Amino acid sequence: MHTIAIVGGTGPAGSGLASRWARAGQRVIIGSRDAVRAQQKAAEIAAQTGNQNVSGAANAEAVSAAEIIVLTVPFTAQAQTLKDLKLAFRPGIILIDATVALASTVGGRATRVLGVWQGSAAQQAAELVSKGVLVAAAFQNIGAELLQSAADVDCDVIVCSDHDEARQAAIELANLIPGARGIDGGRLENARTVEQLTALLIAINTRYKVHSAGLRITGLPTMSSLGSKT
Amino acid sequence: MHTIAIVGGTGPAGSGLASRWARAGQRVIIGSRDAVRAQQKAAEIAAQTGNQNVSGAANAEAVSAAEIIVLTVPFTAQAQTLKDLKLAFRPGIILIDATVALASTVGGRATRVLGVWQGSAAQQAAELVSKGVLVAAAFQNIGAELLQSAADVDCDVIVCSDHDEARQAAIELANLIPGARGIDGGRLENARTVEQLTALLIAINTRYKVHSAGLRITGLPTMSSLGSKT
Repeated sequence: MHTIAIVGGTGPAGSGLASRWARAGQRVIIGSRDAVRAQQKAAEIAAQTGNQNVSGAANAEAVSAAEIIVLTVPFTAQAQTLKDLKLAFRPGIILIDATVALASTVGGRATRVLGVWQGSAAQQAAELVSKGVLVAAAFQNIGAELLQSAADVDCDVIVCSDHDEARQAAIELANLIPGARGIDGGRLENARTVEQLTALLIAINTRYKVHSAGLRITGLPTMSSLGSKT
Repeated sequence: MHTIAIVGGTGPAGSGLASRWARAGQRVIIGSRDAVRAQQKAAEIAAQTGNQNVSGAANAEAVSAAEIIVLTVPFTAQAQTLKDLKLAFRPGIILIDATVALASTVGGRATRVLGVWQGSAAQQAAELVSKGVLVAAAFQNIGAELLQSAADVDCDVIVCSDHDEARQAAIELANLIPGARGIDGGRLENARTVEQLTALLIAINTRYKVHSAGLRITGLPTMSSLGSKT
Protein backbone atom coordinates (compact mmCIF):
# COMPACT_ATOMS: atom_id res chain seq x y z
CA MET A 1 0.00 0.00 0.00
CA HIS A 2 1.25 3.47 -0.90
CA THR A 3 0.51 6.77 0.76
CA ILE A 4 -0.41 9.08 -2.07
CA ALA A 5 -0.91 12.82 -1.65
CA ILE A 6 -2.91 14.49 -4.40
CA VAL A 7 -2.11 18.18 -4.65
CA GLY A 8 -5.17 19.77 -6.18
CA GLY A 9 -7.14 16.77 -4.96
CA THR A 10 -10.46 18.59 -4.68
CA GLY A 11 -10.53 19.31 -8.44
CA PRO A 12 -12.21 17.04 -10.98
CA ALA A 13 -9.10 15.13 -12.12
CA GLY A 14 -7.52 14.95 -8.68
CA SER A 15 -10.64 13.73 -6.94
CA GLY A 16 -11.21 11.22 -9.74
CA LEU A 17 -7.73 9.75 -9.28
CA ALA A 18 -8.20 9.83 -5.50
CA SER A 19 -11.36 7.77 -5.65
CA ARG A 20 -9.78 5.27 -8.06
CA TRP A 21 -6.82 4.71 -5.74
CA ALA A 22 -9.03 4.67 -2.66
CA ARG A 23 -11.07 1.91 -4.31
CA ALA A 24 -7.80 0.04 -4.94
CA GLY A 25 -7.04 0.10 -1.21
CA GLN A 26 -4.34 2.77 -1.16
CA ARG A 27 -3.91 5.40 1.55
CA VAL A 28 -4.87 8.71 -0.06
CA ILE A 29 -4.40 12.24 1.24
CA ILE A 30 -6.40 14.91 -0.53
CA GLY A 31 -4.37 18.12 -0.63
CA SER A 32 -5.86 21.56 -1.18
CA ARG A 33 -5.00 25.16 -0.41
CA ASP A 34 -8.04 24.96 1.87
CA ALA A 35 -7.69 22.20 4.48
CA VAL A 36 -11.42 22.23 5.27
CA ARG A 37 -12.39 21.65 1.64
CA ALA A 38 -9.78 18.89 1.46
CA GLN A 39 -11.29 17.19 4.52
CA GLN A 40 -14.81 17.48 3.12
CA LYS A 41 -13.74 15.92 -0.21
CA ALA A 42 -11.84 13.20 1.64
CA ALA A 43 -14.91 12.31 3.71
CA GLU A 44 -16.97 12.16 0.53
CA ILE A 45 -14.49 9.82 -1.19
CA ALA A 46 -14.13 7.66 1.93
CA ALA A 47 -17.90 7.23 2.07
CA GLN A 48 -18.17 6.58 -1.66
CA THR A 49 -15.36 4.01 -1.79
CA GLY A 50 -15.62 2.44 1.63
CA ASN A 51 -11.93 3.12 2.24
CA GLN A 52 -11.37 4.90 5.56
CA ASN A 53 -7.74 5.61 4.73
CA VAL A 54 -8.69 8.77 2.87
CA SER A 55 -7.89 12.02 4.63
CA GLY A 56 -7.67 15.70 3.73
CA ALA A 57 -5.09 18.34 4.58
CA ALA A 58 -3.51 21.56 3.41
CA ASN A 59 -1.18 20.85 0.48
CA ALA A 60 2.09 21.20 2.42
CA GLU A 61 0.91 18.88 5.16
CA ALA A 62 -0.35 16.34 2.59
CA VAL A 63 3.02 16.40 0.80
CA SER A 64 4.96 15.96 4.04
CA ALA A 65 2.98 12.84 4.98
CA ALA A 66 3.16 10.99 1.64
CA GLU A 67 5.61 8.84 -0.33
CA ILE A 68 4.16 9.72 -3.69
CA ILE A 69 2.82 13.14 -4.68
CA VAL A 70 0.47 13.54 -7.63
CA LEU A 71 0.05 17.06 -8.97
CA THR A 72 -3.33 17.82 -10.55
CA VAL A 73 -3.68 21.59 -10.45
CA PRO A 74 -4.57 23.72 -13.50
CA PHE A 75 -1.51 24.77 -15.52
CA THR A 76 -1.95 28.38 -14.45
CA ALA A 77 -1.44 27.33 -10.82
CA GLN A 78 1.33 24.77 -11.39
CA ALA A 79 4.46 26.91 -10.99
CA GLN A 80 3.27 28.84 -7.96
CA THR A 81 2.04 25.67 -6.25
CA LEU A 82 5.42 23.99 -6.70
CA LYS A 83 7.27 27.07 -5.46
CA ASP A 84 5.03 27.25 -2.39
CA LEU A 85 5.58 23.56 -1.64
CA LYS A 86 9.31 23.46 -2.36
CA LEU A 87 10.34 22.97 1.27
CA ALA A 88 7.69 20.30 1.89
CA PHE A 89 9.19 17.94 -0.71
CA ARG A 90 11.74 15.60 0.89
CA PRO A 91 14.72 14.33 -1.15
CA GLY A 92 13.90 11.04 -2.85
CA ILE A 93 10.17 11.67 -2.91
CA ILE A 94 8.27 10.89 -6.11
CA LEU A 95 6.31 13.62 -7.87
CA ILE A 96 3.92 12.55 -10.60
CA ASP A 97 2.86 15.53 -12.65
CA ALA A 98 -0.42 15.34 -14.58
CA THR A 99 -0.45 18.93 -15.76
CA VAL A 100 -1.30 19.91 -19.33
CA ALA A 101 -0.81 23.49 -20.49
CA LEU A 102 -4.14 23.60 -22.34
CA ALA A 103 -4.64 26.96 -24.01
CA SER A 104 -8.12 27.00 -22.46
CA THR A 105 -6.52 27.71 -19.08
CA VAL A 106 -5.74 31.20 -20.38
CA GLY A 107 -8.88 31.70 -22.43
CA GLY A 108 -7.78 29.88 -25.60
CA ARG A 109 -8.90 26.61 -27.13
CA ALA A 110 -8.85 23.29 -25.29
CA THR A 111 -7.63 21.71 -28.54
CA ARG A 112 -4.38 23.66 -28.28
CA VAL A 113 -1.55 23.80 -25.77
CA LEU A 114 0.58 26.73 -24.73
CA GLY A 115 4.28 26.65 -25.44
CA VAL A 116 6.13 26.01 -22.19
CA TRP A 117 9.72 27.22 -22.27
CA GLN A 118 11.09 23.99 -20.78
CA GLY A 119 9.25 21.92 -23.39
CA SER A 120 6.31 20.69 -21.33
CA ALA A 121 4.52 21.30 -18.06
CA ALA A 122 6.24 18.24 -16.61
CA GLN A 123 9.67 19.58 -17.52
CA GLN A 124 8.73 22.88 -15.93
CA ALA A 125 7.81 20.94 -12.78
CA ALA A 126 11.17 19.16 -12.82
CA GLU A 127 12.93 22.51 -13.03
CA LEU A 128 10.98 23.97 -10.12
CA VAL A 129 11.45 21.22 -7.55
CA SER A 130 14.66 20.53 -5.63
CA LYS A 131 17.17 18.18 -7.22
CA GLY A 132 16.41 15.08 -5.15
CA VAL A 133 12.72 14.99 -6.15
CA LEU A 134 12.03 12.23 -8.70
CA VAL A 135 9.60 13.51 -11.32
CA ALA A 136 7.43 11.46 -13.66
CA ALA A 137 4.73 12.71 -16.02
CA ALA A 138 1.55 10.63 -16.28
CA PHE A 139 -2.26 10.61 -16.15
CA GLN A 140 -2.73 13.53 -18.55
CA ASN A 141 -4.87 11.62 -21.06
CA ILE A 142 -7.74 10.17 -18.99
CA GLY A 143 -10.63 12.60 -18.75
CA ALA A 144 -11.79 13.71 -15.30
CA GLU A 145 -15.35 12.65 -16.09
CA LEU A 146 -14.24 9.07 -16.74
CA LEU A 147 -11.99 9.01 -13.67
CA GLN A 148 -14.86 10.14 -11.46
CA SER A 149 -17.08 7.32 -12.64
CA ALA A 150 -16.64 3.69 -11.65
CA ALA A 151 -16.43 2.57 -15.29
CA ASP A 152 -13.40 0.76 -16.69
CA VAL A 153 -10.93 3.14 -18.28
CA ASP A 154 -10.18 2.13 -21.87
CA CYS A 155 -6.93 4.10 -22.03
CA ASP A 156 -3.22 3.61 -21.59
CA VAL A 157 -1.27 5.85 -19.23
CA ILE A 158 2.00 6.83 -20.89
CA VAL A 159 4.63 7.48 -18.24
CA CYS A 160 7.66 9.65 -18.98
CA SER A 161 10.50 10.00 -16.53
CA ASP A 162 14.25 10.18 -16.16
CA HIS A 163 14.07 8.19 -12.90
CA ASP A 164 13.31 4.47 -12.88
CA GLU A 165 11.78 4.60 -9.41
CA ALA A 166 9.33 7.34 -10.36
CA ARG A 167 8.51 5.64 -13.66
CA GLN A 168 7.77 2.37 -11.90
CA ALA A 169 5.59 4.03 -9.25
CA ALA A 170 3.52 5.80 -11.90
CA ILE A 171 3.10 2.60 -13.92
CA GLU A 172 1.98 0.79 -10.76
CA LEU A 173 -0.53 3.52 -9.90
CA ALA A 174 -1.87 3.38 -13.46
CA ASN A 175 -2.30 -0.38 -13.28
CA LEU A 176 -4.42 0.06 -10.12
CA ILE A 177 -7.12 1.78 -12.19
CA PRO A 178 -9.40 -0.85 -13.78
CA GLY A 179 -8.85 -0.93 -17.55
CA ALA A 180 -5.91 1.46 -17.52
CA ARG A 181 -2.40 0.26 -18.33
CA GLY A 182 0.85 1.99 -17.53
CA ILE A 183 3.21 2.26 -20.50
CA ASP A 184 6.85 3.26 -20.34
CA GLY A 185 7.03 6.31 -22.60
CA GLY A 186 10.73 6.97 -22.09
CA ARG A 187 12.35 10.19 -20.96
CA LEU A 188 10.59 13.03 -19.20
CA GLU A 189 11.05 15.20 -22.29
CA ASN A 190 8.60 12.92 -24.12
CA ALA A 191 5.87 14.38 -21.91
CA ARG A 192 5.69 17.12 -24.54
CA THR A 193 3.89 14.74 -26.84
CA VAL A 194 1.79 13.09 -24.14
CA GLU A 195 0.56 16.46 -22.89
CA GLN A 196 -0.35 17.52 -26.42
CA LEU A 197 -2.22 14.26 -26.87
CA THR A 198 -4.75 15.55 -24.35
CA ALA A 199 -5.56 18.44 -26.67
CA LEU A 200 -5.77 16.06 -29.64
CA LEU A 201 -8.14 13.76 -27.72
CA ILE A 202 -10.31 16.77 -26.90
CA ALA A 203 -10.42 17.58 -30.63
CA ILE A 204 -11.41 13.98 -31.36
CA ASN A 205 -14.09 14.12 -28.64
CA THR A 206 -15.59 17.10 -30.45
CA ARG A 207 -15.40 15.53 -33.90
CA TYR A 208 -17.03 12.27 -32.80
CA LYS A 209 -19.41 13.77 -30.23
CA VAL A 210 -18.05 11.61 -27.42
CA HIS A 211 -16.67 12.52 -23.99
CA SER A 212 -13.86 10.13 -23.23
CA ALA A 213 -11.73 9.36 -26.28
CA GLY A 214 -8.54 7.70 -25.11
CA LEU A 215 -5.67 5.81 -26.64
CA ARG A 216 -4.00 2.44 -26.58
CA ILE A 217 -0.48 1.66 -27.68
CA THR A 218 -0.39 -1.38 -29.98
CA GLY A 219 2.38 -3.69 -31.14
CA LEU A 220 3.78 -4.30 -27.64
CA PRO A 221 4.60 -7.64 -26.03
CA THR A 222 1.56 -9.29 -24.42
CA MET A 223 -0.03 -7.83 -21.29
CA SER A 224 1.47 -10.53 -19.08
CA SER A 225 5.03 -9.71 -20.07
CA LEU A 226 4.22 -6.04 -19.60
CA GLY A 227 3.02 -6.89 -16.13
CA SER A 228 6.28 -8.55 -15.25
CA LYS A 229 8.17 -5.58 -16.68
CA THR A 230 6.59 -3.26 -14.17
CA MET B 1 -10.63 3.56 -57.84
CA HIS B 2 -8.30 6.47 -57.20
CA THR B 3 -5.14 7.46 -59.05
CA ILE B 4 -2.59 8.07 -56.31
CA ALA B 5 0.84 9.55 -56.96
CA ILE B 6 3.40 8.90 -54.26
CA VAL B 7 6.13 11.51 -54.26
CA GLY B 8 9.14 9.84 -52.72
CA GLY B 9 7.57 6.53 -53.69
CA THR B 10 10.86 4.65 -53.95
CA GLY B 11 11.62 5.21 -50.25
CA PRO B 12 10.66 2.74 -47.52
CA ALA B 13 7.44 4.47 -46.36
CA GLY B 14 6.36 5.49 -49.85
CA SER B 15 6.88 2.09 -51.40
CA GLY B 16 5.14 0.47 -48.43
CA LEU B 17 2.06 2.64 -48.92
CA ALA B 18 2.23 2.04 -52.67
CA SER B 19 2.16 -1.73 -52.27
CA ARG B 20 -0.73 -1.52 -49.77
CA TRP B 21 -2.83 0.56 -52.15
CA ALA B 22 -1.82 -1.55 -55.15
CA ARG B 23 -3.03 -4.61 -53.25
CA ALA B 24 -6.31 -2.77 -52.62
CA GLY B 25 -6.78 -2.32 -56.39
CA GLN B 26 -5.94 1.36 -56.69
CA ARG B 27 -4.01 2.93 -59.57
CA VAL B 28 -0.65 3.95 -58.16
CA ILE B 29 2.07 6.10 -59.68
CA ILE B 30 5.46 5.90 -58.00
CA GLY B 31 7.12 9.31 -58.19
CA SER B 32 10.85 9.88 -57.80
CA ARG B 33 13.44 12.44 -58.81
CA ASP B 34 14.78 9.60 -60.97
CA ALA B 35 12.16 8.28 -63.41
CA VAL B 36 14.11 5.09 -64.06
CA ARG B 37 14.26 4.19 -60.35
CA ALA B 38 10.55 4.97 -60.11
CA GLN B 39 9.78 2.61 -62.99
CA GLN B 40 11.91 -0.15 -61.49
CA LYS B 41 10.16 0.16 -58.12
CA ALA B 42 6.76 0.24 -59.87
CA ALA B 43 7.56 -2.96 -61.77
CA GLU B 44 8.61 -4.59 -58.52
CA ILE B 45 5.38 -3.59 -56.75
CA ALA B 46 3.24 -4.62 -59.73
CA ALA B 47 4.84 -8.07 -59.70
CA GLN B 48 4.56 -8.37 -55.93
CA THR B 49 0.90 -7.33 -55.74
CA GLY B 50 -0.40 -8.61 -59.05
CA ASN B 51 -1.76 -5.14 -59.84
CA GLN B 52 -0.67 -3.95 -63.28
CA ASN B 53 -1.94 -0.42 -62.61
CA VAL B 54 1.31 0.54 -60.93
CA SER B 55 3.61 2.80 -62.91
CA GLY B 56 6.63 4.97 -62.26
CA ALA B 57 7.50 8.49 -63.36
CA ALA B 58 9.47 11.57 -62.45
CA ASN B 59 7.74 13.37 -59.57
CA ALA B 60 6.26 16.22 -61.67
CA GLU B 61 4.80 13.82 -64.19
CA ALA B 62 3.40 11.61 -61.43
CA VAL B 63 1.74 14.61 -59.78
CA SER B 64 0.24 15.83 -63.07
CA ALA B 65 -1.41 12.47 -63.72
CA ALA B 66 -2.98 11.88 -60.27
CA GLU B 67 -6.03 12.95 -58.24
CA ILE B 68 -4.39 12.40 -54.90
CA ILE B 69 -0.75 13.10 -54.09
CA VAL B 70 0.92 11.50 -51.10
CA LEU B 71 4.20 13.07 -49.97
CA THR B 72 6.66 10.67 -48.30
CA VAL B 73 10.06 12.34 -48.65
CA PRO B 74 12.42 12.90 -45.70
CA PHE B 75 11.79 16.17 -43.86
CA THR B 76 15.07 17.60 -45.13
CA ALA B 77 13.76 17.27 -48.72
CA GLN B 78 10.15 18.34 -48.08
CA ALA B 79 10.31 22.09 -48.72
CA GLN B 80 12.48 21.88 -51.82
CA THR B 81 10.37 19.06 -53.28
CA LEU B 82 7.18 21.09 -52.84
CA LYS B 83 8.80 24.20 -54.35
CA ASP B 84 10.01 22.20 -57.35
CA LEU B 85 6.56 20.68 -57.89
CA LYS B 86 4.55 23.85 -57.29
CA LEU B 87 3.47 24.24 -60.92
CA ALA B 88 2.57 20.56 -61.26
CA PHE B 89 -0.15 20.76 -58.59
CA ARG B 90 -3.54 21.60 -60.10
CA PRO B 91 -6.10 23.61 -58.13
CA GLY B 92 -8.41 21.29 -56.20
CA ILE B 93 -5.90 18.47 -56.04
CA ILE B 94 -5.48 16.66 -52.72
CA LEU B 95 -2.06 16.52 -51.07
CA ILE B 96 -1.63 14.10 -48.18
CA ASP B 97 1.53 14.89 -46.29
CA ALA B 98 3.15 12.12 -44.25
CA THR B 99 6.27 14.05 -43.29
CA VAL B 100 7.66 14.05 -39.76
CA ALA B 101 10.50 16.41 -38.84
CA LEU B 102 12.41 13.75 -36.90
CA ALA B 103 15.59 15.19 -35.42
CA SER B 104 17.39 12.16 -36.83
CA THR B 105 17.01 13.67 -40.31
CA VAL B 106 19.63 16.23 -39.27
CA GLY B 107 21.77 13.94 -37.14
CA GLY B 108 19.75 14.14 -33.89
CA ARG B 109 17.61 11.57 -32.12
CA ALA B 110 14.70 9.77 -33.76
CA THR B 111 12.84 10.20 -30.47
CA ARG B 112 12.78 13.96 -30.98
CA VAL B 113 11.32 16.28 -33.57
CA LEU B 114 12.66 19.55 -34.87
CA GLY B 115 10.68 22.69 -34.28
CA VAL B 116 9.04 23.74 -37.55
CA TRP B 117 8.20 27.42 -37.67
CA GLN B 118 4.69 26.82 -39.02
CA GLY B 119 3.99 24.34 -36.21
CA SER B 120 4.40 21.07 -38.08
CA ALA B 121 5.75 19.66 -41.31
CA ALA B 122 2.20 19.43 -42.65
CA GLN B 123 1.57 23.10 -41.94
CA GLN B 124 4.81 23.92 -43.71
CA ALA B 125 3.54 21.92 -46.68
CA ALA B 126 0.27 23.86 -46.65
CA GLU B 127 2.20 27.13 -46.72
CA LEU B 128 4.37 26.05 -49.64
CA VAL B 129 1.68 24.84 -52.06
CA SER B 130 -0.64 27.08 -54.05
CA LYS B 131 -3.90 28.10 -52.42
CA GLY B 132 -6.21 25.68 -54.23
CA VAL B 133 -4.33 22.58 -53.10
CA LEU B 134 -6.22 20.71 -50.36
CA VAL B 135 -3.76 19.48 -47.74
CA ALA B 136 -4.29 16.72 -45.20
CA ALA B 137 -1.73 15.22 -42.82
CA ALA B 138 -1.81 11.44 -42.32
CA PHE B 139 0.17 8.18 -42.32
CA GLN B 140 2.97 9.45 -40.09
CA ASN B 141 2.56 6.80 -37.39
CA ILE B 142 2.75 3.47 -39.26
CA GLY B 143 6.33 2.27 -39.55
CA ALA B 144 7.76 1.62 -43.02
CA GLU B 145 8.75 -1.91 -42.03
CA LEU B 146 5.16 -2.78 -41.19
CA LEU B 147 3.81 -1.10 -44.33
CA GLN B 148 6.20 -3.09 -46.51
CA SER B 149 5.01 -6.37 -45.07
CA ALA B 150 1.65 -7.96 -45.84
CA ALA B 151 0.71 -8.13 -42.13
CA ASP B 152 -2.37 -6.40 -40.75
CA VAL B 153 -1.59 -2.96 -39.42
CA ASP B 154 -2.72 -2.61 -35.79
CA CYS B 155 -2.72 1.18 -35.88
CA ASP B 156 -5.10 4.06 -36.43
CA VAL B 157 -4.31 6.74 -38.98
CA ILE B 158 -5.13 10.12 -37.51
CA VAL B 159 -6.06 12.54 -40.28
CA CYS B 160 -5.77 16.30 -39.79
CA SER B 161 -7.05 18.75 -42.36
CA ASP B 162 -8.86 22.01 -42.87
CA HIS B 163 -10.58 20.61 -45.99
CA ASP B 164 -13.34 18.02 -45.76
CA GLU B 165 -12.55 16.57 -49.16
CA ALA B 166 -8.90 15.97 -48.30
CA ARG B 167 -9.80 14.59 -44.87
CA GLN B 168 -12.26 12.14 -46.39
CA ALA B 169 -9.81 11.00 -49.07
CA ALA B 170 -7.12 10.33 -46.46
CA ILE B 171 -9.55 8.43 -44.23
CA GLU B 172 -10.62 6.32 -47.23
CA LEU B 173 -7.02 5.56 -48.17
CA ALA B 174 -6.29 4.57 -44.55
CA ASN B 175 -9.28 2.24 -44.49
CA LEU B 176 -7.90 0.45 -47.59
CA ILE B 177 -4.95 -0.83 -45.54
CA PRO B 178 -5.94 -4.03 -43.71
CA GLY B 179 -6.17 -3.36 -39.96
CA ALA B 180 -5.67 0.39 -40.25
CA ARG B 181 -8.50 2.79 -39.49
CA GLY B 182 -8.77 6.42 -40.52
CA ILE B 183 -9.66 8.75 -37.64
CA ASP B 184 -10.73 12.36 -38.00
CA GLY B 185 -8.15 14.25 -35.95
CA GLY B 186 -9.55 17.71 -36.62
CA ARG B 187 -7.70 20.71 -38.01
CA LEU B 188 -4.42 20.57 -39.90
CA GLU B 189 -2.70 22.29 -36.95
CA ASN B 190 -3.30 19.13 -34.89
CA ALA B 191 -0.71 17.43 -37.11
CA ARG B 192 1.81 18.88 -34.64
CA THR B 193 0.82 16.25 -32.14
CA VAL B 194 0.42 13.43 -34.65
CA GLU B 195 3.88 14.06 -36.07
CA GLN B 196 5.39 14.07 -32.58
CA LEU B 197 3.61 10.80 -31.86
CA THR B 198 5.94 9.15 -34.36
CA ALA B 199 8.92 10.13 -32.20
CA LEU B 200 7.10 8.88 -29.08
CA LEU B 201 6.32 5.56 -30.76
CA ILE B 202 9.99 5.24 -31.70
CA ALA B 203 10.88 5.78 -28.03
CA ILE B 204 8.35 3.12 -27.04
CA ASN B 205 9.78 0.73 -29.66
CA THR B 206 13.18 1.12 -28.00
CA ARG B 207 11.84 0.69 -24.46
CA TYR B 208 9.88 -2.46 -25.30
CA LYS B 209 12.33 -3.84 -27.87
CA VAL B 210 9.67 -4.00 -30.59
CA HIS B 211 9.59 -2.58 -34.12
CA SER B 212 6.07 -1.49 -34.81
CA ALA B 213 4.41 0.12 -31.81
CA GLY B 214 1.28 1.89 -32.98
CA LEU B 215 -1.78 3.45 -31.44
CA ARG B 216 -5.53 3.09 -31.34
CA ILE B 217 -7.99 5.76 -30.32
CA THR B 218 -10.55 4.40 -27.84
CA GLY B 219 -13.93 5.62 -26.63
CA LEU B 220 -15.31 6.28 -30.13
CA PRO B 221 -18.63 5.13 -31.54
CA THR B 222 -18.50 1.56 -32.91
CA MET B 223 -16.52 0.76 -36.06
CA SER B 224 -19.66 0.48 -38.17
CA SER B 225 -20.77 4.01 -37.39
CA LEU B 226 -17.23 5.20 -38.07
CA GLY B 227 -17.43 3.47 -41.41
CA SER B 228 -20.60 5.29 -42.34
CA LYS B 229 -19.07 8.57 -41.17
CA THR B 230 -16.34 8.31 -43.75
